[in-house]
Amino acid sequence: MSLDGNGGPNALDRLVTLFSRLPGVGKKSAGRMTYHILDGDPSYARTLAEELAGLHRTIRRCSNCGSFTETDPCPICSDPGRDHSVICVVERAQDIRIIEEAREFHGLFHVLGGLIAPLEGMGPDNLSINQLVSRLRRDRVTELILALNPTVEGDTTALYLQKILRDFPVEITRLASGLPVGGDLEYTDRLTLSRSFRGRVKL
Amino acid sequence: MSLDGNGGPNALDRLVTLFSRLPGVGKKSAGRMTYHILDGDPSYARTLAEELAGLHRTIRRCSNCGSFTETDPCPICSDPGRDHSVICVVERAQDIRIIEEAREFHGLFHVLGGLIAPLEGMGPDNLSINQLVSRLRRDRVTELILALNPTVEGDTTALYLQKILRDFPVEITRLASGLPVGGDLEYTDRLTLSRSFRGRVKL
Repeated sequence: MSLDGNGGPNALDRLVTLFSRLPGVGKKSAGRMTYHILDGDPSYARTLAEELAGLHRTIRRCSNCGSFTETDPCPICSDPGRDHSVICVVERAQDIRIIEEAREFHGLFHVLGGLIAPLEGMGPDNLSINQLVSRLRRDRVTELILALNPTVEGDTTALYLQKILRDFPVEITRLASGLPVGGDLEYTDRLTLSRSFRGRVKL
Repeated sequence: MSLDGNGGPNALDRLVTLFSRLPGVGKKSAGRMTYHILDGDPSYARTLAEELAGLHRTIRRCSNCGSFTETDPCPICSDPGRDHSVICVVERAQDIRIIEEAREFHGLFHVLGGLIAPLEGMGPDNLSINQLVSRLRRDRVTELILALNPTVEGDTTALYLQKILRDFPVEITRLASGLPVGGDLEYTDRLTLSRSFRGRVKL
């Protein structure tokens, strides 16, 4: 680490430290990113700075589905061309992006904000299950597709949802196997994801 | 890609695109980084934005050695505790960081700004060789350590420097093998780098 005139880390080191807090970015990658920016056109750093500075002001949560959006409700929830009778339940907002890229699903989404994991202190109350129940009460929803990772937490959450939604006139399905067990939605290729949508099984 | 109300990519997509221009960052990694920032404390995004906005204003090139620095000359060039009679010649400014971390070298540095690579249009005139010659003329330098990658371009540059500096009363050495041939300084572990400093051979 280099020091500035006052004995503190300099601007370059501070940026390396900040970048290395991002997921999947180690200290060496953070260094390469920083030097790449320093070596490059200052307009890139300026644009990136502006986007970051405005990010949390511009992007909020959709009050209906919980996805990240610039408008509320989000473009998906407010699109009359989508099938409002089917809701795909996902763990995190970024799962929506991955599913949208597969272009297999044309209904709405619901972001749970996590999965039930008692050992990590994540219970049903930490998830947006009440909001999901409100949507089922308010809207004419015929099918709920659980697009949760095929892990212990995903299975637990699916079972819990199945139990508490038993009395609703809604069919609950879950993405077909095809996702590798123990894997992560995010690393699934488009074709496998499409296939698992088509082969989803009724719970 | 999601669209904003006006049909353009939204702030989230713009940030993903910007991040994916960084070295070693693909579209999926860029997505993970963006959602991590969105999910996290807004103060992180704000701090990162401020550091990026000020980066090119705060960090400049040292007029003596060519490294990135907040003060000119840089802390290394202006440190009386370092050995000013030995100059370690590196390809890029980031190589200094890697060598400093090995804590084996206590002299000064000189950043060439590249290596001779005729096929890529990089000739001696594109490198800071004149500045190096000026330093040798002005300062009492007894040894020049070439810490260049053991590649064709590194070998060519080392040979070229050896030739044009033949008449200077300076010993020219090169980092010992120990660096894997065809490899990159940046990926060398600290011990291997230390060993290659100790075993440097006279050209």
